[in-house]
Amino acid sequence: MNEKKISFAADYEEGAHHTIISNLTRTNLLKTAGFCEDEFSEAARKKIRELCGSNDAEIYFMVGGTQANFVVVSALLRSYQGVIAADSGHINLREAGAIEATGHKVLTIPHVDGKISANDVKIFVEQFYENELHEHMVAPGMVYISQPTEYGTIYTLDELRKLSTVCREKNLVLYVDGARLAYSLAYPRNNVTLKNLYELADVFCIGGTKCGAFFGEAVVTRKNFIPHFITTIRQHGALLAKGRILGVQFYTLFTDNLYLKIGRRGIDMADKIRAEIQKQGFELYIDSQANLIFFTLTETQARKLAENISFRVWEKFSAEKVVIRLATSWATKDNEVDVLLTELKRLKFV
Amino acid sequence: MNEKKISFAADYEEGAHHTIISNLTRTNLLKTAGFCEDEFSEAARKKIRELCGSNDAEIYFMVGGTQANFVVVSALLRSYQGVIAADSGHINLREAGAIEATGHKVLTIPHVDGKISANDVKIFVEQFYENELHEHMVAPGMVYISQPTEYGTIYTLDELRKLSTVCREKNLVLYVDGARLAYSLAYPRNNVTLKNLYELADVFCIGGTKCGAFFGEAVVTRKNFIPHFITTIRQHGALLAKGRILGVQFYTLFTDNLYLKIGRRGIDMADKIRAEIQKQGFELYIDSQANLIFFTLTETQARKLAENISFRVWEKFSAEKVVIRLATSWATKDNEVDVLLTELKRLKFV
Amino acid sequence: MNEKKISFAADYEEGAHHTIISNLTRTNLLKTAGFCEDEFSEAARKKIRELCGSNDAEIYFMVGGTQANFVVVSALLRSYQGVIAADSGHINLREAGAIEATGHKVLTIPHVDGKISANDVKIFVEQFYENELHEHMVAPGMVYISQPTEYGTIYTLDELRKLSTVCREKNLVLYVDGARLAYSLAYPRNNVTLKNLYELADVFCIGGTKCGAFFGEAVVTRKNFIPHFITTIRQHGALLAKGRILGVQFYTLFTDNLYLKIGRRGIDMADKIRAEIQKQGFELYIDSQANLIFFTLTETQARKLAENISFRVWEKFSAEKVVIRLATSWATKDNEVDVLLTELKRLKFV
Amino acid sequence: MNEKKISFAADYEEGAHHTIISNLTRTNLLKTAGFCEDEFSEAARKKIRELCGSNDAEIYFMVGGTQANFVVVSALLRSYQGVIAADSGHINLREAGAIEATGHKVLTIPHVDGKISANDVKIFVEQFYENELHEHMVAPGMVYISQPTEYGTIYTLDELRKLSTVCREKNLVLYVDGARLAYSLAYPRNNVTLKNLYELADVFCIGGTKCGAFFGEAVVTRKNFIPHFITTIRQHGALLAKGRILGVQFYTLFTDNLYLKIGRRGIDMADKIRAEIQKQGFELYIDSQANLIFFTLTETQARKLAENISFRVWEKFSAEKVVIRLATSWATKDNEVDVLLTELKRLKFV
Repeated sequence: MNEKKISFAADYEEGAHHTIISNLTRTNLLKTAGFCEDEFSEAARKKIRELCGSNDAEIYFMVGGTQANFVVVSALLRSYQGVIAADSGHINLREAGAIEATGHKVLTIPHVDGKISANDVKIFVEQFYENELHEHMVAPGMVYISQPTEYGTIYTLDELRKLSTVCREKNLVLYVDGARLAYSLAYPRNNVTLKNLYELADVFCIGGTKCGAFFGEAVVTRKNFIPHFITTIRQHGALLAKGRILGVQFYTLFTDNLYLKIGRRGIDMADKIRAEIQKQGFELYIDSQANLIFFTLTETQARKLAENISFRVWEKFSAEKVVIRLATSWATKDNEVDVLLTELKRLKFV
Repeated sequence: MNEKKISFAADYEEGAHHTIISNLTRTNLLKTAGFCEDEFSEAARKKIRELCGSNDAEIYFMVGGTQANFVVVSALLRSYQGVIAADSGHINLREAGAIEATGHKVLTIPHVDGKISANDVKIFVEQFYENELHEHMVAPGMVYISQPTEYGTIYTLDELRKLSTVCREKNLVLYVDGARLAYSLAYPRNNVTLKNLYELADVFCIGGTKCGAFFGEAVVTRKNFIPHFITTIRQHGALLAKGRILGVQFYTLFTDNLYLKIGRRGIDMADKIRAEIQKQGFELYIDSQANLIFFTLTETQARKLAENISFRVWEKFSAEKVVIRLATSWATKDNEVDVLLTELKRLKFV
Repeated sequence: MNEKKISFAADYEEGAHHTIISNLTRTNLLKTAGFCEDEFSEAARKKIRELCGSNDAEIYFMVGGTQANFVVVSALLRSYQGVIAADSGHINLREAGAIEATGHKVLTIPHVDGKISANDVKIFVEQFYENELHEHMVAPGMVYISQPTEYGTIYTLDELRKLSTVCREKNLVLYVDGARLAYSLAYPRNNVTLKNLYELADVFCIGGTKCGAFFGEAVVTRKNFIPHFITTIRQHGALLAKGRILGVQFYTLFTDNLYLKIGRRGIDMADKIRAEIQKQGFELYIDSQANLIFFTLTETQARKLAENISFRVWEKFSAEKVVIRLATSWATKDNEVDVLLTELKRLKFV
Repeated sequence: MNEKKISFAADYEEGAHHTIISNLTRTNLLKTAGFCEDEFSEAARKKIRELCGSNDAEIYFMVGGTQANFVVVSALLRSYQGVIAADSGHINLREAGAIEATGHKVLTIPHVDGKISANDVKIFVEQFYENELHEHMVAPGMVYISQPTEYGTIYTLDELRKLSTVCREKNLVLYVDGARLAYSLAYPRNNVTLKNLYELADVFCIGGTKCGAFFGEAVVTRKNFIPHFITTIRQHGALLAKGRILGVQFYTLFTDNLYLKIGRRGIDMADKIRAEIQKQGFELYIDSQANLIFFTLTETQARKLAENISFRVWEKFSAEKVVIRLATSWATKDNEVDVLLTELKRLKFV
């Protein structure tokens, strides 16, 4: 990592929000039970239950996102089932075969702006059951989506409702990976609340790692939806001994609207950058709304930008152009954005 | 958890050593690469390499102990192999079938004081290959031991050397689970150093969770011993996005001998309690040396003790008696021990 | 294999009953659908349904016993569950970790004459749930027994009923491995019929391989008890392309009482041998009823017997003695038994 | 199955070649060791070793093709590895997630006429290692191809050599699935012999099920290439107790050139059909050489043909047309072909 470069490469490059650190410090020497059976974890669950509008919501804390995904898949799918996901989905591409390592196939559907639609799912499932050889094929058992998606787009309430309806009709579990959920919840025109997620998804997770915590994902589901889930979590090495650290972090994130403030900061910074990109005449690759920005540059421009800015080259766009991904976060500083904007202006003359 | 009780139930009931907290706070807003590719993780690796006496030692940081165990097993065993462990071993009893979930059988050998001997392993393997049906049985591929053991006993250098020799003769991986390693390294008469572990084991882990860290295990192995290990770690959800938090913690633990100081505190407190137990005429169940104390009480005495002290009832000893486990740690306070000793004295009249 | 020796080593040393061969030959060039969707398989299912007393019984044909076991376990157990079995059980010892390879732990109970009792299961499950750490342990999800057992003993209807009751109370699947079922069904004092098995077990298999077929096991279960079972069977490589071969074989076995005749022949031969063993003053190790005979010999006697007879040395009995296992079958010839009995008489003078 | 229809739906609709039946009958009551340790299996191995030109070739008999595939994958791949296959490959589409059930991802490459090229594999692997995130992705560990392919095309010796070279350069196992191998070996212009397969592939299988046997696949590999393979085979339920049945069948197939005769019959019938299809002005979809024929019909024509002929509708070709698959085999009769050709002629007027 070039110390002099300013980085927009990822949304997990800093530690934790200072309130989290001070709460961890304050509670450090209290003795508690392990494995998230402590009072902090319980207090965090209470906060999340309120936001979900249900005293019955079950909340399990895990350490990381890949972990949450494969533990949920492993707990809910039977051996003959696979999980439907966008071909751009994190579980299909970036998680080192974690889903397959649990014995399940990822059944991909082409994405549109990172999303899959209720109708695509419906057609996929219907074609599966119409196929006379379907008993020789992996049956769809779950739909996996991310909110926001890998491309920073945000499902609308209407889109989510339709997905939920299809999933219930077709007897599929709907799982929403909210690794960056703060950045959709805080989006001004977002209309999908935690309450909606609780009602429409069967399981969803609230990301901590990319949203201000040191680490941690809160997996939310209905009472008794996943039997013996603690055992499955433990079995996959996903039950933190000092679970209190997860409890304190999520309690803090859901106190005084911190989670939304964190999300809002990331979006505001992203909006500022998106505006400048368009003002300077560059082309947005995706009309994203969350803390991820995708735009195209020529290879020469990309090399120039890389001199002072860290970012991710997402994919080839054309023979000459590449897609650049920038990520902002709760920790993005004003002056970092200023330097980026200056660099973007300079690219016009490259 | 009864707030008024003083707890000796586990060695993971507090947060982290204050030096760790201050180092996490100090480095919090620095931007680093993710997934333990940051400079803090590298600095921690350097410290550990020095103690292992090898620039070639490969060190991987994971979050938890069960995780480290099943990721190592999964990475090293072929489908036809199982892992030899003491029947009292953590992986056999307490990890929710994590090893079996990776597809491998635990092959148990009866323990003596929590240990298995080189000779027991030798006989097990030889009997296996002498069995005419052995091709229809799971082949031993790894030996798993804990240092210290689940019973707080510590392998001597001689015992470890013999185990290592048998493993190399029989082509078995030797894996040492050091979840509580600080409490053996700091034991005054311990003669097994990190350098010995590096030379004699193929893989071992240095526990953070029970030894002063918020969480974390450092898995140490030889260069190229485990190919593509990062991928396997990632696949099992064991690669922390903000790996820096592991780096900072292990760097801190191995700076200024903190790891040994932490271990020593736990042992000193345990020694004080063991002395009093014997002085009061109670019977030690195991002659342990580390931070775990096992002794027997009548059921009535156990109930009495439980009024003011939290502990673990480990198993039945006889019709009337049970085995009690007490755990001390780096965070055990003098006054907690004083209260315990007073309670122990009172038990004589029960 | 010594051509001159007469073998009682196993009950799968010949091909198939001649009626099976003639039926396979007769139907050979008819074209049928694959994967057990043919008319022979359907006819065989009809025969078995009648014997089970239910038109709703679902019957799936697989090739082998290990296969049937692990496909059933894989289809029915969730990731947090294991299977209770006698420590002498085939799935624990002789199937190369097939159960563990599906990700599940075998939870062993000590056997008495190869059996486990309803009460043992009850205590095991109750102690499990009483254990405060049970969420960190593999939960019992299935009980696996064999009828007859590995030791040739036969569960009575009363024993099976009690097991069934406990399993239903404790929410455990009861699976009966009938690899040698013909040899219990044909036992004169046996009181466990296919109808009983269908009512009391959740899943059971009817062995073909050891009971007169070239190969094959029929797995019987209730309608809809195992969803998408064909897919799971296929996934584990257990769905035979030319399923008709299984259909023809099972149709033949259940026509004109062939299955019982086959079983009866094995038992009659075993009874004759057991009588002579006792007459000659040798000690039966187990009072078995089916086609397996266990008795003890000195090492010297065993070596002598091995000169002309093939058998299995099952285990050590004492410093000087070993346990010998003899197996008879549908194909055991009178003159083979005669030679064996003569050899047994000669052993007295060794 | 409509009894009156003539079927070209699959190449596994009959039983076994009559020579196999007579050999099974002749050897039926001989006693042999189990698990393919018998003299017939050994004799079959000797025949195959000769054809492979190596006394060191190791040959393992299994029951089915899906089974052979997933047992080989499970035995050879490490947890971080996946298998490269054509997107049209059997293991990707038709085996119910068998590969994923062993924990491994199928990494697909677009096929050209059912084949993948050495160059495609090379590019795939190089792009993988150039990807900066490749440690977070499943590493290619094996290349899976079929000879002939799912589309009835046949790899040339030159194509196979190039694939082999790339695999060795890139440290990938090359596995050739020969489920229909007789139909490539017997193809007049085929230049890939068993000897070539043994030299160029690391593992390949010789199909019995679709080539005249009741069932069975012979997996061929180099000495010691797969350690403890018997155990892995057993673990996956793929070790037949009465292995002699596999031995007798493969011995028969490789005696008096039966395997080639069987293949030749299938090809001759297919050639006759292909010629007529083109003569009648229908369009071949794929220029296949083996016993599979792919051509296009309008939906109306397909419905008409289905009145008297069974076949597989493979996929949609265009809005009005579908791709039809016909399969011939060793058992296809002249008069069946005659009826088919007559039906094809009638389609012109539809």
